[in-house]
Amino acid sequence: MNIGLIGVGLIGGSVGHAAHERIDSVHVRGFDLSQAALETALELGAVDEACATAAEAAEGADICFVCCPVRSLPGAVREALAAGGDCVVTDVGSTKGALLAGLRSDDVSDADVSRFVGGHPLAGAEAAGVENARGDIFAGAIWYLTPIERTSGVLYERLYRTISSLGARPTAIDPDTHDRVMATVSHLPHAIANVLVGQAASALLEERQRLPATGPSFRDATRVAGTNPAVWRDIFLTNREAIAAELETYVRGLEEMLGYLRSDDAGALERWIEEARANRQRLLELELAGGPVSELRVSVPNKPGIVAQVALALGEAGVNIVDMALYPAADMQSGAIALWVSGERSAERAVELIGKLGYPTTVVADESVGESV
Amino acid sequence: MNIGLIGVGLIGGSVGHAAHERIDSVHVRGFDLSQAALETALELGAVDEACATAAEAAEGADICFVCCPVRSLPGAVREALAAGGDCVVTDVGSTKGALLAGLRSDDVSDADVSRFVGGHPLAGAEAAGVENARGDIFAGAIWYLTPIERTSGVLYERLYRTISSLGARPTAIDPDTHDRVMATVSHLPHAIANVLVGQAASALLEERQRLPATGPSFRDATRVAGTNPAVWRDIFLTNREAIAAELETYVRGLEEMLGYLRSDDAGALERWIEEARANRQRLLELELAGGPVSELRVSVPNKPGIVAQVALALGEAGVNIVDMALYPAADMQSGAIALWVSGERSAERAVELIGKLGYPTTVVADESVGESV
Repeated sequence: MNIGLIGVGLIGGSVGHAAHERIDSVHVRGFDLSQAALETALELGAVDEACATAAEAAEGADICFVCCPVRSLPGAVREALAAGGDCVVTDVGSTKGALLAGLRSDDVSDADVSRFVGGHPLAGAEAAGVENARGDIFAGAIWYLTPIERTSGVLYERLYRTISSLGARPTAIDPDTHDRVMATVSHLPHAIANVLVGQAASALLEERQRLPATGPSFRDATRVAGTNPAVWRDIFLTNREAIAAELETYVRGLEEMLGYLRSDDAGALERWIEEARANRQRLLELELAGGPVSELRVSVPNKPGIVAQVALALGEAGVNIVDMALYPAADMQSGAIALWVSGERSAERAVELIGKLGYPTTVVADESVGESV
Repeated sequence: MNIGLIGVGLIGGSVGHAAHERIDSVHVRGFDLSQAALETALELGAVDEACATAAEAAEGADICFVCCPVRSLPGAVREALAAGGDCVVTDVGSTKGALLAGLRSDDVSDADVSRFVGGHPLAGAEAAGVENARGDIFAGAIWYLTPIERTSGVLYERLYRTISSLGARPTAIDPDTHDRVMATVSHLPHAIANVLVGQAASALLEERQRLPATGPSFRDATRVAGTNPAVWRDIFLTNREAIAAELETYVRGLEEMLGYLRSDDAGALERWIEEARANRQRLLELELAGGPVSELRVSVPNKPGIVAQVALALGEAGVNIVDMALYPAADMQSGAIALWVSGERSAERAVELIGKLGYPTTVVADESVGESV
């Protein structure tokens, strides 16, 4: 199988590695605007052959993966399609609607449009760059594909099977639905982190607090604030309608809470928080664990290396940590660790294992986390 | 010194332990509505003597700490004050304005009001309950104190010194300012987590996505969704004016972004994200590290125990981890670790140390995190 890669960064490079590791007799030809990246990709074996242009990388390929930033996609996809042949062209961008709309309204022929299938692998938290590419980053990951009516069935099937071979789970989704879902679960959290961090910075500055203390809930909520401005500017802009709609829904959600506050409605407020708890639990279970998730709190005294000890003990016993957060005390020497483990028996085993290390561990029920968190 | 504790849960119990560990010849008398909690506190040595009523715990005390849920504070504080004597009464609740307003407008005498100083230690991420209490949870923690004009200077000084002795950093703040700051950095993040998780749950249900995939930004932003409904209902309600104001400011911030989206203003959007990055960095540095913080991404292949290995290597070398997040791949076997370490040289050392373990590590600059995070 001949694979073309336009863009050999983290994702493109990982496609190259995964193809080499998991598909027999594959030949990967790559192009990148950065000559340095292309050379590294060759050296690391992500590509077998470096090409001088995007069109060259697509020529004669069975599949061409366009792995460049969102704003460069329309041009690069058109170049790949223009190379002709029986090649299915796909991309890996975070938004799909704008790209497809561009192709459909453009001077791209119907035959060419039928060879394009939008794609979006949910992977790549690693630092960018081909030097961080690995063949296993797609293992078990959802890889959204957005076929449209005009899409060639034969080519779609080829892409679908290849993505399965790379270790991912290809999942067909309507492009607009994709963009709406991403707006909710990814673009909105990024947007609100940016707003929150700005509000806190100006509030704390205004209050002239010498020692602002934000707390772990704030830190968690703002961890993605300011991620990669150039990339996120384009994600926001290419999905602006869906994000605007989500922001509006979100504002209505905030206003619902505002209503409970204004009417001093304790019952409604408590039910609203309980519902949030149930929703978070449900999403975690569906997404990360495929089964029940339990939250544990480990109380850790002044002792270094504790995260290591706890992780090692659970790892050795095969207890699956699906999420972890540190709540260090101000002296950074002690504090608490929140752990989410999957499976009810895992929670019991974790309590026992961590207990043996000498740290009090509690399975968190609704009532058992203090108010100062 | 005689200390009275009304409420011997996580915070009350920890005050007892810290007092025993750090103050000479201290005698702690405690009361709790839960007889079981009181007995455990006695057994664990958090209190020296169990009392039958709140008033009894306050009698003859030099300081009485009222450590019960926010909604029970007005009653308990009044009981403590009614016990009379030269006792300074303080509380540890998350909101201050409502309690103080209640005391000032009530039938509490001016002399009694002068003996009350509101307090709020920023500690207690551990699971609730006296069994998780420890003498070191206040070490280095900010402990807000909210003296008012009428507050007795002598008693305020006694409280201030004692809180220093417990290991905390007493920090005087106007009660309304306290409530505003908490609304921004704690109550708002909790509120928005609750809204976000509900919106995602209904969106994903509506789209009939079999496999909702929320991504790490969502997980971080919603980690506190649904925390302790009864406690948080009361925090929200007792600080409802400040929270409502923060929600309104927040909605204006969201609308600012909405404006950039609607006007397709790429430049403004990018500057807005860059500003968020700078703000997050500034807050992290001020709060957690007291100096520069660097973000690292560690790319981790399929290998268990890696969190342990990394934490141990850095711990042994004295590199201070101020924040950590896991970005597991869908197979839960590989992925990325985000680490924030303090000090520029710490970043270099961490890259070197983790590199020796065989994992590629990158110091994250503005451009170096992929878009799929």
